[in-house]
Amino acid sequence: MSFEAAVHAKALQLNHACLEMCAAAGSGHPTSAMSISHIVTVLMYHTMRWLPDHPRYPTADRLVLSEGHAVPIVYAAFADLRGVFGRGQAIRPMTSEDLRTLRQNDSFLDGHPNPMEGFPFFDAATGSLGQGLSIAAGVAAAARRDGLRRHVYCVIGDGEAREGQVTEALDFIIDHGLANVLPIFNCNGYGQADAVSGQQSPEVLERKLAAAGYTVRTIDGHDPSAIKATLDLFAERSAGNQPMAIVARTVKGWGAPCIQGGGWHGKPPTGRKLEQAREELNATGVSLTSALSPNEQLRIYPPDEHRVPEVEVSEPITLDEAMRRLDMTHVLQGGKFATRKAYGLALRMLGLSNPGVYVLDADVRNSTFAEEFLKEKDLTPRFLECRIAEQNMISVGVGLSAAGKIPFCSSFAKFLTRAYDQIEMAIYSGANLKIVGSHSGISLAADGPSQMALPDVAWFRAFTTMRDHHGGPGCYLLQPADAFAAYGLTMAMARHHGVCCMRTFRPDVEFIYDSNHVFELGRFEVLTEGRDLLIVSAGYMVHECNKALERLDRAGIDASLVDLYSIPFDTDALLDLANRNNGNILTVEDNFGGGIGSAVADACAESGDAFTLQQMCVRRIPKSAIDEPSILRQCGLDAESIARTAAKMLGVAVGS
Amino acid sequence: MSFEAAVHAKALQLNHACLEMCAAAGSGHPTSAMSISHIVTVLMYHTMRWLPDHPRYPTADRLVLSEGHAVPIVYAAFADLRGVFGRGQAIRPMTSEDLRTLRQNDSFLDGHPNPMEGFPFFDAATGSLGQGLSIAAGVAAAARRDGLRRHVYCVIGDGEAREGQVTEALDFIIDHGLANVLPIFNCNGYGQADAVSGQQSPEVLERKLAAAGYTVRTIDGHDPSAIKATLDLFAERSAGNQPMAIVARTVKGWGAPCIQGGGWHGKPPTGRKLEQAREELNATGVSLTSALSPNEQLRIYPPDEHRVPEVEVSEPITLDEAMRRLDMTHVLQGGKFATRKAYGLALRMLGLSNPGVYVLDADVRNSTFAEEFLKEKDLTPRFLECRIAEQNMISVGVGLSAAGKIPFCSSFAKFLTRAYDQIEMAIYSGANLKIVGSHSGISLAADGPSQMALPDVAWFRAFTTMRDHHGGPGCYLLQPADAFAAYGLTMAMARHHGVCCMRTFRPDVEFIYDSNHVFELGRFEVLTEGRDLLIVSAGYMVHECNKALERLDRAGIDASLVDLYSIPFDTDALLDLANRNNGNILTVEDNFGGGIGSAVADACAESGDAFTLQQMCVRRIPKSAIDEPSILRQCGLDAESIARTAAKMLGVAVGS
Repeated sequence: MSFEAAVHAKALQLNHACLEMCAAAGSGHPTSAMSISHIVTVLMYHTMRWLPDHPRYPTADRLVLSEGHAVPIVYAAFADLRGVFGRGQAIRPMTSEDLRTLRQNDSFLDGHPNPMEGFPFFDAATGSLGQGLSIAAGVAAAARRDGLRRHVYCVIGDGEAREGQVTEALDFIIDHGLANVLPIFNCNGYGQADAVSGQQSPEVLERKLAAAGYTVRTIDGHDPSAIKATLDLFAERSAGNQPMAIVARTVKGWGAPCIQGGGWHGKPPTGRKLEQAREELNATGVSLTSALSPNEQLRIYPPDEHRVPEVEVSEPITLDEAMRRLDMTHVLQGGKFATRKAYGLALRMLGLSNPGVYVLDADVRNSTFAEEFLKEKDLTPRFLECRIAEQNMISVGVGLSAAGKIPFCSSFAKFLTRAYDQIEMAIYSGANLKIVGSHSGISLAADGPSQMALPDVAWFRAFTTMRDHHGGPGCYLLQPADAFAAYGLTMAMARHHGVCCMRTFRPDVEFIYDSNHVFELGRFEVLTEGRDLLIVSAGYMVHECNKALERLDRAGIDASLVDLYSIPFDTDALLDLANRNNGNILTVEDNFGGGIGSAVADACAESGDAFTLQQMCVRRIPKSAIDEPSILRQCGLDAESIARTAAKMLGVAVGS
Repeated sequence: MSFEAAVHAKALQLNHACLEMCAAAGSGHPTSAMSISHIVTVLMYHTMRWLPDHPRYPTADRLVLSEGHAVPIVYAAFADLRGVFGRGQAIRPMTSEDLRTLRQNDSFLDGHPNPMEGFPFFDAATGSLGQGLSIAAGVAAAARRDGLRRHVYCVIGDGEAREGQVTEALDFIIDHGLANVLPIFNCNGYGQADAVSGQQSPEVLERKLAAAGYTVRTIDGHDPSAIKATLDLFAERSAGNQPMAIVARTVKGWGAPCIQGGGWHGKPPTGRKLEQAREELNATGVSLTSALSPNEQLRIYPPDEHRVPEVEVSEPITLDEAMRRLDMTHVLQGGKFATRKAYGLALRMLGLSNPGVYVLDADVRNSTFAEEFLKEKDLTPRFLECRIAEQNMISVGVGLSAAGKIPFCSSFAKFLTRAYDQIEMAIYSGANLKIVGSHSGISLAADGPSQMALPDVAWFRAFTTMRDHHGGPGCYLLQPADAFAAYGLTMAMARHHGVCCMRTFRPDVEFIYDSNHVFELGRFEVLTEGRDLLIVSAGYMVHECNKALERLDRAGIDASLVDLYSIPFDTDALLDLANRNNGNILTVEDNFGGGIGSAVADACAESGDAFTLQQMCVRRIPKSAIDEPSILRQCGLDAESIARTAAKMLGVAVGS
């Protein structure tokens, strides 16, 4: 059988499987899957160098299915190749029987690519559209840095190509000359609700890709020879710096005319229609494969042998040591330093001690102080400038994580909102991603609300209330109050495998801790232990609470102060402390509600004990103010207001 | 003085003002502002038809400053033109004195464009980058529909053009032939941390714009005649369907070489440097304006007279009436209907009764049922298909709202995450935006977590804890449990001015209410009143709780059930009810924590009374399951688990 006939025959076999598994599941997207049947066949059975029995082999080529809903075709091929899948104790070769479990509760085959549930062929969860190419670029960037001859193929839907993140990824790939990643646009012409916009037609996509600097090949996505030739061309060029892209004209529901055209998105045929589709696939097979001479087999080639690199990870130095090394002892003596600056130093020292650490920036490295990383010449290859494109930055981080790296992505905490969907997918992907948002809360003052992160604590906290695939919290949310905490928590994030988000803030603040202090995820620190009232705060507001404590002390109130630098935290320990403070708790935070206050309220309510809890947070949309004292007063979060509220809870009046 | 000299002179005057106001504020972005001084001068003093004493005049041309940090130049021009600004009682012409209040707590001049704080010249808050062009497109789309000869100019930074949303907006403008909006790319070559990527150079931007279908003119952005000629060309073509774009080569810190180049982003010169910059601006002025003959003045032209259209808003019909009209009485009799389907019918009936209602979709209109709107021929012009580009959809909605429309934007609730930054900016903009997310929570089952909205309740709830500029909640979060609630709450959203988000879900569910029931934002409904335990739930989970109630009843437990369809809600009323149930509360929701449970916990804790609260929510990353019963069991949220948890709270065992 010729290569061409072999591919057609295989594509038809896989398409049959797609129809059957979606019919069994009663849902799924067989027609999308069928539109990439030839592309996936040539990739998985011929072009990709990979090992079905070791799908995560470190040098293996990768396939990122950005249009995750087309996943049945990959499941079908993987089962046919007896690829190894599963979770925990149940790791084994997949069979065609497994396909019939698609989307079931105890199946490893989720509705969309979901490696953490047992399909390790994929590097990350996809299905929320437009993210795949960025992930692929992250994997490719890591391969480049590691000197691996590894190709990353990414299939993107035409409708999906409308997502702005796709263009962010395309620009990123050109900026970094990542010719080892290949975007393949699957132009089947139909989105979910309608035909695809002319702006995503093959012609316009080709023009746009060329304009962005790509070498573009437009092919018939069901022509095995054309696919093979184009992929060969990519392989030849992949060591260079000139990225290439494929625009593939395809047919949604290829091989079965009765389910082609609009109206068949995400809708598996059943009954008579399924019968008809099967017959049409058979007829297509007869017409395409019989006339061709049988003289070639499909064969999978293995990847390069992986040599485990000698990686030396040493203990990073302390902030004291770092400052001495960098002639910054005057800062130590001055007693003030911004958390964002300490984060920068931590990144730099971490980079020197751990070759797995990567840093990603979105054109604000001189504000987040991620630029410190660039000050060490040896570290520059591991710094990836992503420009003003936060979505791409986070998903590139997911790709780096899949390649075994420890990526730190930082921007203004506000601008990270742009990438919440990507962060959520990172959590579902089990990524080892570290996210740092600077200028959080209201303390940046003058720039106004468009630059302030205010609902972010509530959002990240949602992930701290649930468990990930390993039983840990979906995410740690960290809010260092001083430079030592920021430094220590950066190191703690690197030690933890999983998604962490740290909030830093703009102003320089006084030291609270020193280099001997140990910061651990899930803990908090009792800064002052009193007996009348427990104040719980974090980040910048700890300093304002400290000032309030002085006022309260003058009024004869003996308050406790907790620096709740981590969510989740040890709720029992916190409530014990509250009980030693007559059950009076005041939470103080510089963001909207749903954050620390609600975390404490949840704990109180669940305990069943009686507490008196008052929450202070930002209760109105803030506006610009010239400095920190003004913004604190504007939001009613200055030391005086805190002290007044605390005293009122105890029925005492305080002077100003 | 010639036009050219007049523009130069004016630009220099405004640049002086930018330097002074930023120096006074001690922060701001004068060099970015100076890079668009000529463009803004030609626009605001010549090309734009507008009324400085009525900046929101309905037919006036609009300027959207997407790179919001460049706002000082607009403040300077507006003050020079004695534009009317302010809030509440303090509406008055602006003077140059006002410029010195930039960024102060009591100033109308926020750090970034912020119309709600008193600068009505702008339609929306900008400053979180990449959103302006979508907003401009929304204003332009409304003008087209209203038959207004109105031009919308949008200035976008070159670094900012990397944000994927900009390409989403560019595609949207072409799709809808909005030649009345003009994107102007300000290519000053410098971002914040670095020179701009080659991918956003004038040459590549020009190529990309042409590839996307724009007629592009690349000009010297400091050449008054070139600016004027290009804007004149735009005006000539604006009634057509072929959009145009300008790529302007500019100089960051134009006129003052000592603050040009890298390192001067967001950094106002002070002291000697300020002195030097002033001198350089003066010298630039001498060289540019003296040699030109004084024979032309800058003159602002007024907009077309606005005729208040005769808009007839009638009372929308009820769901019963709608179903009778559409031959759907069998559904009424069947007693089941999905909330998303009811939303679709509500949109359709609302559209017929209110000509201000617009509907925006992101290629899932057949899933959200927004497609119902398209079934009325009269409504199709008010349906804007945005394709798979949620960020652009939300910001277009903000633009429509600025033009007085009531936009409903819907997608899967999960995919709306993509646009959280845009939604946040909509709230800060005071937009009248309605957001509807379908397939929320876990009940869509088979598609898996990449399609489920899970932390969304926590996020939207953050905005319900604070107040907007009018004193109302920043947002209402609505979760209808049945078709009548979805229908009624859609109508309630339309009656309210502000941002509302409604969560619908996939499955058909039984009717709980009828057309006589009145749904109001901020309220809840007591479905069953018992005395042992209060169960609080919303949306899909109300049905599961109803089943749990039967089990509890059999175990002799007399539980109450509240449908908490709105957050915020009347906390006192809810706690009264809890007190009538021995203070026992069980919250049940199909999302991560931080949602209803925390809202109730906040209320309990703040009350100071003792309650026993237990929260049931999604405590692990969910995976696909074949149907609703399986996913509910997987997440421990099935009726049996609810009943068991409730009974355990009361120390009673229940059978299954």
